Amino acid sequence: MSLTEWKSVSRRHVLGGLAALPALSALPALFAASGARADEAAPLPSWNDRPAKQAILAFLRAATDPASTDFVPAEDRIAAFDQDGTLWVEHPIYTQVVYCLDRVPGLVKANPHLAKVEPFRTALTGDLERIGKLSLRDLETIAAATLTGMDVETFAAEAKAWIEAAHDHRWKRFYTDLVYQPMQEVLGLFRANGFKTFIVTGGGQDFVRVYSQRVYGIPPEQVVGSALGTQFGYDKAGRPILTKEPKLLLNDDHAGKPEGIHLEIGRRPHAAFGNSTGDREMLEYVKSGGGARLMMLVLHDDAKREYAYGPARGLPDTRVGSFPAALDDQAKRDGWVVVSMKDDWKRIFAFGG
Amino acid sequence: MSLTEWKSVSRRHVLGGLAALPALSALPALFAASGARADEAAPLPSWNDRPAKQAILAFLRAATDPASTDFVPAEDRIAAFDQDGTLWVEHPIYTQVVYCLDRVPGLVKANPHLAKVEPFRTALTGDLERIGKLSLRDLETIAAATLTGMDVETFAAEAKAWIEAAHDHRWKRFYTDLVYQPMQEVLGLFRANGFKTFIVTGGGQDFVRVYSQRVYGIPPEQVVGSALGTQFGYDKAGRPILTKEPKLLLNDDHAGKPEGIHLEIGRRPHAAFGNSTGDREMLEYVKSGGGARLMMLVLHDDAKREYAYGPARGLPDTRVGSFPAALDDQAKRDGWVVVSMKDDWKRIFAFGG
Repeated sequence: MSLTEWKSVSRRHVLGGLAALPALSALPALFAASGARADEAAPLPSWNDRPAKQAILAFLRAATDPASTDFVPAEDRIAAFDQDGTLWVEHPIYTQVVYCLDRVPGLVKANPHLAKVEPFRTALTGDLERIGKLSLRDLETIAAATLTGMDVETFAAEAKAWIEAAHDHRWKRFYTDLVYQPMQEVLGLFRANGFKTFIVTGGGQDFVRVYSQRVYGIPPEQVVGSALGTQFGYDKAGRPILTKEPKLLLNDDHAGKPEGIHLEIGRRPHAAFGNSTGDREMLEYVKSGGGARLMMLVLHDDAKREYAYGPARGLPDTRVGSFPAALDDQAKRDGWVVVSMKDDWKRIFAFGG
Repeated sequence: MSLTEWKSVSRRHVLGGLAALPALSALPALFAASGARADEAAPLPSWNDRPAKQAILAFLRAATDPASTDFVPAEDRIAAFDQDGTLWVEHPIYTQVVYCLDRVPGLVKANPHLAKVEPFRTALTGDLERIGKLSLRDLETIAAATLTGMDVETFAAEAKAWIEAAHDHRWKRFYTDLVYQPMQEVLGLFRANGFKTFIVTGGGQDFVRVYSQRVYGIPPEQVVGSALGTQFGYDKAGRPILTKEPKLLLNDDHAGKPEGIHLEIGRRPHAAFGNSTGDREMLEYVKSGGGARLMMLVLHDDAKREYAYGPARGLPDTRVGSFPAALDDQAKRDGWVVVSMKDDWKRIFAFGG
C-alpha cells in the first residue's frame, strides 16, 4: 500500500470510526450561514454579546486598570491556551495522531520487520474496524516510533512539510485553517493588552512549535506541550545534533499542565482556556492566585458548524475530547466561564465556517 | 549553632577553602581604579575597542542587515547566556550553593534526625576543612534536601528574601550587584537589536527566575536551567499547589544545555556566551546553523579586579569553573571569541569594581 493510499485509508478510518460526523450535505448551508461582517474596530467581533464575551472584556479591564484592586503588573500578564479543541478542531481525531499514522508506511519501509509487529501490522492493514480499536498504548507505541530517532531539525522540516500539505476530510482545508476565529481574536486582544500568550497543549510541543508562529502568532518558546527527551551528539559529518528519544520528559495533560507551566514558564498564569478534563488542573491552578483571574472552557455544542460532544448537557460521549457533567458542575461552582460554540460564536472559522 | 553563625562559617569556609582570593588590602586600589566615564551613547561603553567588542558589533550588523547573506529574521533572533561566571561572579563558590548551605540549619531544626546524618552532620560542624571536602554528590544531597518539599511559591518567596539580603564576603555587596557591567551592556544591545535574551544556566532555574527580571531584565520564562520535577496537588486548605520534588528533570550543563534549549526554547540560538567546559556543547550547537553566528567565552584572567582561573594560559586550576587549554584550543579552531576580562573590559561592575 502506498503512502497516498494509506493517507486515504487513515483518514477514512478516522472519519468512519471515531466520531459521529454531520452529513456532508449540511456543508453548503453551513458556508452560506457564514460571512458575518463584524465590526473589526470593536473587540471580539466574532463573539456574540453574551456573558462569555463580557467576562473576557471585564477581565482585561480589571487586569490592565492600575486603579483596579485586581490590577496585574505588565510583567505578570501570562495567559495559557490549550490547543486541541480550544484553538483548533480536535475531532474526529487529533491532527498529530493523523500525522503519526501517516508516517507508519515510511517507517515500515525503512524497518521492514515492523510489518509483522503490532500495532504496526494493524495500522498497515487498512482495516478500519481494527485500526479504530487500537488502544491508547498502541497509539503511544506508534507515536514513539514515528516521532523519534531523527534529529530535531529533520523532525521539524518533515512536520512542516506535512502540515503545509495535509488536508482534513470534512472541510477539505489545511488543518491550520481549522483554527477558531473567535479564539484568534482572544489571542490578539490579550496581546494588545500586554499579555504574553502561551499554548499549553497535551500534544507534542515539537509538533506545535513548527506552525505556532505562523498560525497563532505564538513563537516556539511560548509553546508548552508534551515533550520527549533529546540526546546531544554528532552526526557522521561531526555536526552537533539533538536526536529525539522515546523517553517521555513531560506528559503535558491533566496535572502535567500546571507542572509543564512551572517548568517552562515559571509562574502562575492569570488566564487559562481549555475544553476538557485534561485542562481541569490547569484551570484550578490558574484560579488560585491573586489579581484578576479568568478561567474558560469551550463547550463543543455545535454539531452543525463544528462538532458536538460532552457528555455534559446530554451531548454525545466521544472518544476524542471529554467535557463531562462533573466539569460543567465544577465550572459553575468555581466561576469558570463555559463558552457555548453555538451561542457565543458568530462564526467558527476565518473562512466562514 | 544559629543560622547567623552558620552563615558566617559557611562564608568563611567558602572563602577560605575553595579558591585563592586576592588580599583584601587590594580592594581600595581596585575601587580607585574604577569610575571610567564611558560614553553611554556609543555601544558597549565598558568594553575596550578590541577584537571581542568588534566581533559583537560585526555579528549584530550582519544579523540585522537585510542585505547581509547572514541576515537573521527578527523571529529567529535568540541569544543564550550562561549565568555563573558569564553574567555574574561564580567564585569562590556558586551563589546557589551558599543558599543551600545557609538552609541546612533550618532544615535540621525541622528534621532533627538529620543532625546525625551525613553530609548534614558535616555541614553543621562548621569545620571548614571538612566542609571543603564534601563531594559533589554530598552537595547534591544537600541541594535536594534544601530545595525540595515546599511548594514552588514558598520556594520563590524564601529565595527572594535571601537574595535580597545576603551579601558576598569580598565586596560586601548583594550577590546581585556582582553582575558584570560589560555583559549587562551586551544583553541590552542584543535586545535593542531585536534579540530575545535567554539565560541558559547549570544552576537551578527556579532560583534564577526569582531575580532574573530585576537583575538582568530577563523574564522568568526566558530562564532555562537545571530543573527538578514538581508534583501537582492540594494543600490542607484544598488550594492547588506544585510541590518541588527531589527528581532531576533537566541537568542543564554540558550536553544538557542544548537539550534544555530545545526543551524550553525550541530552536537553535544564533549567539551563545559561556565561560567553561560546561558551555562547550552549547557553543558547538549554536555554531552549527545558518545565518550569523557568535560564540563567546569569558576568560577569568583578572585576579585583581575579579578572579583568575583556567587552567588555560597558565591560570590557576580551581574547583569552581574550568576553562582548560583544550577549550582555548577549540575556541581558536572553531572561531569562538575569548573575552579577556583583564584586557577587554574597562570595568567589571556597575559600582566601579
